[in-house]
Amino acid sequence: MVKKITTKSQVVSLLEKYDYFLFDCDGVIWLGDHLLPSVVETLQLLKDAGKIVIFVTNNSTKSRDDYLHKFEKLGIQGITKDEVFGSSYASAVYVDKILKLPKDKKVWVLGEAGIETELKQLGYNTLGGADPDLNSNGVVFNPEHKQLNELDDSVGAVVAGLTLNLNYLKLSITMQYLLKDDKSIPFVATNIDSTFPSKGKLLIGAGSIIETVSYASGRQPDAICGKPNQSMMNSIKADNPGLAEAPGRGLMIGDRLNTDMKFGRDGGLDTLLVLTGIEKEETVKSLDSSTAPTYYADKLGDLFELTC
Amino acid sequence: MVKKITTKSQVVSLLEKYDYFLFDCDGVIWLGDHLLPSVVETLQLLKDAGKIVIFVTNNSTKSRDDYLHKFEKLGIQGITKDEVFGSSYASAVYVDKILKLPKDKKVWVLGEAGIETELKQLGYNTLGGADPDLNSNGVVFNPEHKQLNELDDSVGAVVAGLTLNLNYLKLSITMQYLLKDDKSIPFVATNIDSTFPSKGKLLIGAGSIIETVSYASGRQPDAICGKPNQSMMNSIKADNPGLAEAPGRGLMIGDRLNTDMKFGRDGGLDTLLVLTGIEKEETVKSLDSSTAPTYYADKLGDLFELTC
Repeated sequence: MVKKITTKSQVVSLLEKYDYFLFDCDGVIWLGDHLLPSVVETLQLLKDAGKIVIFVTNNSTKSRDDYLHKFEKLGIQGITKDEVFGSSYASAVYVDKILKLPKDKKVWVLGEAGIETELKQLGYNTLGGADPDLNSNGVVFNPEHKQLNELDDSVGAVVAGLTLNLNYLKLSITMQYLLKDDKSIPFVATNIDSTFPSKGKLLIGAGSIIETVSYASGRQPDAICGKPNQSMMNSIKADNPGLAEAPGRGLMIGDRLNTDMKFGRDGGLDTLLVLTGIEKEETVKSLDSSTAPTYYADKLGDLFELTC
Repeated sequence: MVKKITTKSQVVSLLEKYDYFLFDCDGVIWLGDHLLPSVVETLQLLKDAGKIVIFVTNNSTKSRDDYLHKFEKLGIQGITKDEVFGSSYASAVYVDKILKLPKDKKVWVLGEAGIETELKQLGYNTLGGADPDLNSNGVVFNPEHKQLNELDDSVGAVVAGLTLNLNYLKLSITMQYLLKDDKSIPFVATNIDSTFPSKGKLLIGAGSIIETVSYASGRQPDAICGKPNQSMMNSIKADNPGLAEAPGRGLMIGDRLNTDMKFGRDGGLDTLLVLTGIEKEETVKSLDSSTAPTYYADKLGDLFELTC
């Protein structure tokens, strides 16, 4: 039976038991552009208690700097870059640290500026992404487009993620790089969430876009960098040796069972599901011990409200 | 061992053996906008011999009328509408004859004008497709777009196919209709070819685009209307009772093993593979009897050239 957080004494024992608090953002901290209730106060409570807070998001359209701006805009002060892990950053780190792609190689990006920014900060040049030369051809596809017909031989990796600014040209050029050199150019997915929640609706997620180029090229991604994949957890642990040594001192807080909760559990952390996003209370109650979170709560802000 | 057509006497016996000649178009009749050699003469030879010729294509971007224009433009005279079967027409027939969708219901189209034209000729109103209101938002996705936020309750089917004019908005609206009413609105695919050959390159095929909305909505198409699916063959046989009674009197000519040759074989027809499109001679020679075509030839035009 999953424990629901409803009393002050439960919150006090959470604060005793954990040093590291990892948060999913959308559905936990905010919903779209709206801050959820008592979140600022809860984060302050944790910081005042000397806890480490880390934000972990699969949305690759933003870079870490973009996230800092969003936190500030919503009135959450004092978050620093090393407290934010996004799938765009995780993908850039994967290209650099795992693939060890030389810095004179370029990366073809099917995605938005967030991925490009993170790759550039690690010293890579990118092609694709938000290049306006590829957008102007969005409405009428031009099979003679130069970038479709003259592939760049210095491209050494393909990174694909959520692309709201999508068209047939970008998909087709991505496919050419995936087929190039006998399908040997590494294929990195930021994350494979099938849906993208936006303003109360489910829209096309990164995983569904990646599925297009995957099916067309006959290739599966060589790496998936977002939650629940543990490469993102390993990056977090590399920056936080205390968590690596004692993962049981960490609590992953999120709104999705199959990404956030799995991500925490697979990394050896305890988990707290909040009901402000995707999942419903009856679902949580019906779970067996292998898939249930350690705790659940109506909302993150309850941690503050229960201690008042 | 597959027989290669290389002599006049082989052509003469083909003309004796078959009354119905079914042709794939791209890679057989033309390559993109270029007519292949001796095709006009071969078609004339068959017509002079009193044969029935039928053109069968999976490309749903064109309607049958569009195909007639293309035949004329390339110098192939005298083709009539009842000789052309496209996956756009097959999909419209499926909506009308199999789904029996009432004519006051609308069809949401993820695809191009070919599908819309065929549906309109059968008396249906369509939404989506080439609607310019959906294209103007191609570059910057607008989550507030009216068609995304106000679904039309009279939509009774979704037809999806190749869409060169693709964007996130169209994909996301398609997803809303696939999720609507507890996922009960029928989902029709024109065809599921993963790739679309264009100017010597493989681009994103209808099947890869359909895979996006399929993965995002968690639904597989309820029907696939293009080759090798036999619903198109059944439409052809319905119009040609002689072929229905004696399918062995028909020869399916194409350039793809997994669509054209399978389509003919599954329909009880003999098959002729030409090497002007996708497949290579060494592939054909390596096939066992369960997958090999009945015959192969370097090109369709050999039927004329060998008889000269």
